Amino acid sequence: MEAKTDDRVHFSDRLAAAIRRRRNPVLVGLDPRAEQLPAGLAPSGRASRAEWAAAYARFCTLIVDVVAPLVPAVKPQAACFEQLGAPGMQALAEVIAHARLRGLLVVVDGKRNDIGSTATAYADGFLGSESAWGADALTVSPYLGDDSLRPFVDVAQARGCGLFILVKTSNPGGGQFQDLIADGLPLYRHVGRHVERLAFETAGVVGYGAVGAVVGATFPEQLAELRGEMPHAWLLVPGFGSQGGTARNVAGAFDTAGLGAVINNSRGIIFAHARPEFAERFGAARWQEAVEAATREMIQQLHAETTAGKL
Amino acid sequence: MEAKTDDRVHFSDRLAAAIRRRRNPVLVGLDPRAEQLPAGLAPSGRASRAEWAAAYARFCTLIVDVVAPLVPAVKPQAACFEQLGAPGMQALAEVIAHARLRGLLVVVDGKRNDIGSTATAYADGFLGSESAWGADALTVSPYLGDDSLRPFVDVAQARGCGLFILVKTSNPGGGQFQDLIADGLPLYRHVGRHVERLAFETAGVVGYGAVGAVVGATFPEQLAELRGEMPHAWLLVPGFGSQGGTARNVAGAFDTAGLGAVINNSRGIIFAHARPEFAERFGAARWQEAVEAATREMIQQLHAETTAGKL
Repeated sequence: MEAKTDDRVHFSDRLAAAIRRRRNPVLVGLDPRAEQLPAGLAPSGRASRAEWAAAYARFCTLIVDVVAPLVPAVKPQAACFEQLGAPGMQALAEVIAHARLRGLLVVVDGKRNDIGSTATAYADGFLGSESAWGADALTVSPYLGDDSLRPFVDVAQARGCGLFILVKTSNPGGGQFQDLIADGLPLYRHVGRHVERLAFETAGVVGYGAVGAVVGATFPEQLAELRGEMPHAWLLVPGFGSQGGTARNVAGAFDTAGLGAVINNSRGIIFAHARPEFAERFGAARWQEAVEAATREMIQQLHAETTAGKL
Repeated sequence: MEAKTDDRVHFSDRLAAAIRRRRNPVLVGLDPRAEQLPAGLAPSGRASRAEWAAAYARFCTLIVDVVAPLVPAVKPQAACFEQLGAPGMQALAEVIAHARLRGLLVVVDGKRNDIGSTATAYADGFLGSESAWGADALTVSPYLGDDSLRPFVDVAQARGCGLFILVKTSNPGGGQFQDLIADGLPLYRHVGRHVERLAFETAGVVGYGAVGAVVGATFPEQLAELRGEMPHAWLLVPGFGSQGGTARNVAGAFDTAGLGAVINNSRGIIFAHARPEFAERFGAARWQEAVEAATREMIQQLHAETTAGKL
């Protein structure tokens, strides 16, 4: 059992250290789905929400046990747990606590946002080992502008925690508003500039800030462009694997030392037992081995195709 | 005790009926804050999060009992409950259930957003009496574009529930991105046009859609402009009272029959016991009477200054 992560150290430096320790930037997404749980983990018959929540907690905990020695961080998806109501949220709390106990950094994917003291309430609730949820970082939506982001930044700073602000998302329709051109630049570049300012303000020893950006793997050109525009911002890159992003697609997200980005894969790892190549090799019962194999495969691909190979 | 709200009827028609029944469009915000609870409701000494959560549930339940005969709807703020972790979320569930039992429509202010099946998970969890949270409507952030909004709309439609999408928010810095001009229009107008399309698509008997817009009371001109631009969209108007919005400021949000908008007031009502005029009149112990007086005062102001007087 490894030491609990220490949030008295700057988030960015903790993230860099975790990436260097594991020699890869893989962020395993914990997105449990009732219909995709491995056989044997789903409750039988007409189960209550509390029974499903217990199954989610068990599934995610077992994944954490597999990936903790392999990767630096995990990203639980708040929506999957909230779907089950209060018992689901209890399961989320258990998963976060277990992951931190196993030495993983935890980024809660909640895409939260609000103004003033309400933004502070979200940040206070999610960030830091003394908080209710005890996460290391949280994803945040930028639509409400700087005075909504500032309370998140203040709490994150005070607690050695991090934020990832949505800039250019991986979904096909993300461009509807994000690509609108204002003053010669798409909206996502305006948001990106603001995030870079916040990243610069909050930079740790390693040069990256406590504030980073979510930029999808499905737009490789914009990813490389934003890497250049946002030299102080960690990029959290979703869209690898199931959404079509490849190791080559995310190469532009890294700096020359292999830092600067974490690459998320959710379904491709946690439901690896359902991918034809792993289903055949392991069968349903050995689903944890499929999780391990898929994680190792992703690490290998990133090592081969990106500067993460220099880690 | 009134009948539980019936979500087999279209959300928009349920909202219109509730507003007509109470003859006002007041949406009471349930934003409990530890430091502002009336004396006697806060747990004594160094209380646990579970004790605070129980206090929040009791405070909000008592407010619901006061306002249920007076107003059509309440808006619990998810952040306040999430700040307390899983016990807080349990309290949120209790508050929602109690409000619906008392015949109030419940709009959860969560400003949720995500893509694809994750958006569906949020919508499935929050919307409808059979869902985990059992709310009638949810606030949603638009940054991720239409393919993130669509799953929310589909679930809302199927369950007779509603959505309020952030368009023009009440905070001073809201304009940082929302006011950027693209193709001759500010971003919030682009978002507003999209919301109007969704409102038109989902219109009920009364002419308004299941999809509405959040537009702050602090920008009266934009409020009137958006009323004109979005003839099928209910407007959820925050910023009344504590944030400086007045009845006159929100007059432009209504149609000629006094429908088309719900006006939110949180702190001005739930913490009315701390407002000088009510503190003197009722003292701290009679805080529920202060809630009632503040609610009646707001209704009167809206009747005097807006078409809500015709309800």
